[in-house]
Amino acid sequence: MTAIDPVANLSTLIRCPSVTPAEGGALAALETMLKPLGFSVDRVTAREDGTPDIENLYARLGTGGPHLMFAGHTDVVPVGDEAAWTHGPFSADIADGQMYGRGAVDMKGGIACFVAAVARHIENNGPPKGSISFLITGDEEGPAINGTTKLLEWAAAKGERWDACLVGEPTNPDQLGDMIKIGRRGSLSGTITVHGVQGHAAYPHLADSPVRGILALTQALMDPPFDAGTDTFQPSNLEVTTIDVGNKAVNVIPAKATASFNIRFNDTWDADSLKAEIIARLDRAAADGVLRPGRQPVKYDIAWSERPSHVFLTRNNALIASLSGAVEAVTGREPKLSTTGGTSDARFIKDYCPVVEFGLVGQTMHMVDERVAVADLETLTGIYETFISRWFGHAAD
Amino acid sequence: MTAIDPVANLSTLIRCPSVTPAEGGALAALETMLKPLGFSVDRVTAREDGTPDIENLYARLGTGGPHLMFAGHTDVVPVGDEAAWTHGPFSADIADGQMYGRGAVDMKGGIACFVAAVARHIENNGPPKGSISFLITGDEEGPAINGTTKLLEWAAAKGERWDACLVGEPTNPDQLGDMIKIGRRGSLSGTITVHGVQGHAAYPHLADSPVRGILALTQALMDPPFDAGTDTFQPSNLEVTTIDVGNKAVNVIPAKATASFNIRFNDTWDADSLKAEIIARLDRAAADGVLRPGRQPVKYDIAWSERPSHVFLTRNNALIASLSGAVEAVTGREPKLSTTGGTSDARFIKDYCPVVEFGLVGQTMHMVDERVAVADLETLTGIYETFISRWFGHAAD
Repeated sequence: MTAIDPVANLSTLIRCPSVTPAEGGALAALETMLKPLGFSVDRVTAREDGTPDIENLYARLGTGGPHLMFAGHTDVVPVGDEAAWTHGPFSADIADGQMYGRGAVDMKGGIACFVAAVARHIENNGPPKGSISFLITGDEEGPAINGTTKLLEWAAAKGERWDACLVGEPTNPDQLGDMIKIGRRGSLSGTITVHGVQGHAAYPHLADSPVRGILALTQALMDPPFDAGTDTFQPSNLEVTTIDVGNKAVNVIPAKATASFNIRFNDTWDADSLKAEIIARLDRAAADGVLRPGRQPVKYDIAWSERPSHVFLTRNNALIASLSGAVEAVTGREPKLSTTGGTSDARFIKDYCPVVEFGLVGQTMHMVDERVAVADLETLTGIYETFISRWFGHAAD
Repeated sequence: MTAIDPVANLSTLIRCPSVTPAEGGALAALETMLKPLGFSVDRVTAREDGTPDIENLYARLGTGGPHLMFAGHTDVVPVGDEAAWTHGPFSADIADGQMYGRGAVDMKGGIACFVAAVARHIENNGPPKGSISFLITGDEEGPAINGTTKLLEWAAAKGERWDACLVGEPTNPDQLGDMIKIGRRGSLSGTITVHGVQGHAAYPHLADSPVRGILALTQALMDPPFDAGTDTFQPSNLEVTTIDVGNKAVNVIPAKATASFNIRFNDTWDADSLKAEIIARLDRAAADGVLRPGRQPVKYDIAWSERPSHVFLTRNNALIASLSGAVEAVTGREPKLSTTGGTSDARFIKDYCPVVEFGLVGQTMHMVDERVAVADLETLTGIYETFISRWFGHAAD
């Protein structure tokens, strides 16, 4: 069966140009891999006014429990500067032991390996002692409105229930086996606009410089730190990602200034308490008049720019032990239990079952020349196969 | 003669759309006013590679001395948000005793009044006992490369010599008669670029945020103050006029950030010592690492964006007394002898003859709904006419 070879699986998937939100043939290819293994496969199109329709896939093997879900996405980020790629971003060329292509590690590689792991498990053990499902979206890199959330709702509405989930995102900073994700920080973004009064640069008292205001407000966001971190999470961190005024005239004080920020937050906060703290800091700085002696408070407004990602932490020891043990058994190294890095769809899945994440080495994700060591594909498949055996073994206790 | 009415003169000039560097018909209109009064008029186009050609005007009445120059500009700053104007920026509409239009006070109004004052002087006294010239540029609001400096050089090369100059820029903060300018602060502008490293907002340690750097550097520019002022000058003042990054992706740390600033400086500094102080502040802040604990110094470069304007002070008591006396005679108020506000072309003229400045009330200059009280036009014309008489009277002593 072709699906037993992760390298062939990944080559097929990479060659599907599934730049979000396009399906690009990737889910069709996945369906073709899964059906011969005995999976029932549903293609689910999710819709919402004002967003593009998104294709998703739900496949299940087995009818009873325990039920293990593998989750991920076939959509990929844009290629960037195509001319800068050493090998085509949809080529799946192999050179010097590396397979090149957008999605190689983020995360078609993870999908390719888990499919191969399931195929090998069936070949070695027969069907699983329970159920295995694939919950695969085409909207993880996009706005995430018509992706995993809707697919979970659809499946749950049909009566699907899961006992654990493994998400195949790339979790290792340097080497395969470095790190499992057992939680993720939240992410909240916003844009501040400071309203000043335009005027002549030589007459600042007749104008009201919004630049001074935006400097005071962004300073207040960045200092002091939001927290010192917790046992399981690094400190929350805010980055001011852009400041923009657009005033080309050096003798003019402009009318308006904007700044956007993103904060990755740990379990000290939820989105509401964090918004309250941010607004409290901004209000204090606006009233303070620092940089603006004798002046009115800074006039500003804030727009929260996207649905915040919520923080979560998984404490299911059996699940974590199965995965950690599998990584150690295959690589010889005990992986770190981490909550660092960005967000993933695990934050949606946490409401349905315990969830952990493990995949390839993420160094080249989102970059030109995204690539994966072919040897890593074999190693990851081995880890996944071991995990499957251990998880179903433990669950049967 | 139409030119005797400052209101009609100004209406004509405002309706010429002379947003710098366009002549917009304004110099042609001025020529039409001056020729019937007996002026010889030259239109002088100034050129330099890399800058737009600029139209200028030099007109002279009389052939001998003493020689009084009136200087100014017909170019105006852009209108800004046209929809926000109550009356069109080129309408010259009169409402509630105010004439509306871009340039109403800065400084078509001054030109309109001086033309009317000359016309009235001739009508009451005959030709002046000496010479009067108009040195009018189309490049005061722009880079000032092809404006007054070149016109002065052209005229001086033809043998023109002047004994005094009055510049008709708006000098009064609140009421006509408040203030004469007897000097001007210098003006220096620059743009700083901070070079960071682009990366993912969730992995700030793999990137290098230039936003933090630009905030540290601009902070250092604005604090502490550069000086506390002198006997004749207010404290030097720096405004950060724009900060720009242009990063629309909330999960990206950008590569670069820029900020521009403008400093109005007094005679504590010259351009060289000021540049040295600015660079010293930036270098200290770049090395300091504030907001960037444990990080490399901020990488930045600075470009000085225009020829600095040099600070100057006029000490010709006869000239100052003629103007001050005329203001007091007409308004009843003794004007302040000031060096506040922005720059003007007086800084170029000071190398040729003593120069002072007096014009309209500047409150609305560079703003939406720039306007002038019609009554002020009559009053200023009276002040100018009295000044002309006094100056030629004194000079004849």
